[in-house]
Amino acid sequence: AAALLARRRSIPTTLLLLCAYVVYLLLGSAAFWAMEGPVERSTALRLLQQKWELLENHTCLDGEALERLAERIVQAYKNGLILKGNASLGRWDFVGSFFFSVSAVTTIGYGNLSPSTVSAQVFCIFFALFGIPLNLVLLNRIGQLMLSGVQQCACHLGNKFNWQKGAAVLTRTCALVAGLLLFLLLPPLLFTAIEGWTYEQGFYYSFITLATIGFGDYVIGMNPDRTYPAWYKNIVSLWILFGMAWLALIINLCISLLENSSDLCQCCKRNSREV
Amino acid sequence: AAALLARRRSIPTTLLLLCAYVVYLLLGSAAFWAMEGPVERSTALRLLQQKWELLENHTCLDGEALERLAERIVQAYKNGLILKGNASLGRWDFVGSFFFSVSAVTTIGYGNLSPSTVSAQVFCIFFALFGIPLNLVLLNRIGQLMLSGVQQCACHLGNKFNWQKGAAVLTRTCALVAGLLLFLLLPPLLFTAIEGWTYEQGFYYSFITLATIGFGDYVIGMNPDRTYPAWYKNIVSLWILFGMAWLALIINLCISLLENSSDLCQCCKRNSREV
Ligand SMILES: [K+]
Ligand SMILES: [K+]
Repeated sequence: AAALLARRRSIPTTLLLLCAYVVYLLLGSAAFWAMEGPVERSTALRLLQQKWELLENHTCLDGEALERLAERIVQAYKNGLILKGNASLGRWDFVGSFFFSVSAVTTIGYGNLSPSTVSAQVFCIFFALFGIPLNLVLLNRIGQLMLSGVQQCACHLGNKFNWQKGAAVLTRTCALVAGLLLFLLLPPLLFTAIEGWTYEQGFYYSFITLATIGFGDYVIGMNPDRTYPAWYKNIVSLWILFGMAWLALIINLCISLLENSSDLCQCCKRNSREV
Repeated sequence: AAALLARRRSIPTTLLLLCAYVVYLLLGSAAFWAMEGPVERSTALRLLQQKWELLENHTCLDGEALERLAERIVQAYKNGLILKGNASLGRWDFVGSFFFSVSAVTTIGYGNLSPSTVSAQVFCIFFALFGIPLNLVLLNRIGQLMLSGVQQCACHLGNKFNWQKGAAVLTRTCALVAGLLLFLLLPPLLFTAIEGWTYEQGFYYSFITLATIGFGDYVIGMNPDRTYPAWYKNIVSLWILFGMAWLALIINLCISLLENSSDLCQCCKRNSREV
């Protein structure tokens, strides 16, 4: 009966949550619409202008031939090939395949590489099916190790200075700041140096990657005009692994705070009713 | 001291897990390399051949002009514009922005649309920062409701036929099969009908979406040659929401089974030592 009551109570709150979610999405899409719409329209105008210029300058091309050409180039781009010089950029070498595997298993899924054959797509499904839980378990472990490290540090400090509560707050704040620096604020500096992005672009890439969104508009190691040091992809892989564990820990802490606070509220209400 | 012991015991198992993870990734990347590498090489050869044919047929284009043209077309494609007829396909309308918001908050991140201006990128970071936990809490709620629905069903059936254990197993199996049908096996049929994909492609899209990988190689509602019914995107959004809740529930059940089994093993070992 208690479970039934809890369920009856939780359906309206779930509906409320759903409404809040939809409103949040609508507000967000209005903002994106307002910010990206005008830019897109002006880009489209510029593109049309360029197209007319092209047709004027290259009289052997008619409109249809240009469209067919564009379609072919886009198709090649989707397959990860860039028309450059005599060679094309091979992306499915072993290092590229490894980076693709990491992106599949972590559910980042940049999509700059994606399997094109049916056999590879089927394999990808099974690979992700077992790889995603494995990755989650590992991230969970790493997060727990980080957390227990911080707690032990707090315990040692508290014992040393005989001030448990202050030491706990201090250590946690330090850990949060250190994590922010190590995983979000310093990596963009590396990306500005090696990829030639601005700091904002590097930060945007870092956040989109660690949050496992992975739009794929910025991906490391994909600029054919740049040479990358050998340690670069390994360091970035390690950063992804530990950074995801750290961000997942933070998000979980936030969620447990959120859910505990709603429990607390219900507790308070019940107590006040009983009084 | 117990915590310290647990931690000391857990560091080697974490290292073991890390090794298993790396080996899994290496095996996967070898498989992708073997499957996609040859296809890529043959596509690259075909592309080069096409390029030479193009240069022969359109004598007003030299190699450099073609490269510049290709770069511009790829840039336009990245911005979501397709050179087609006189108009370009506007993707940042309100429906498109809403779909983008959903893809950001669910961390699917198809990436066929991504913010191009700095202001939209900064907004996107904050939007995802609060949206992802909100989405997780909502998915958690929906998953719990599904689970409690199944459990109540099992309870009712067990009371009716006086066979608790069998009813529980039966209901859970039915729920699993129904979920598989509703969320993974039937939606590809819809996609074959409306997007013109093969069943395998639809299934691949469904899995990649619900697992929140979202490579963006297949995205619904993005073919400019097709007209889509009005209810289509709404139904797909609902499918994404409930399907993600369902798949997250399944993955969590798998993980808890995995972790409980390792706990069980440790328990057994400890007991045998104590005996
Ligand atoms: K993703
Ligand atoms: K993605």
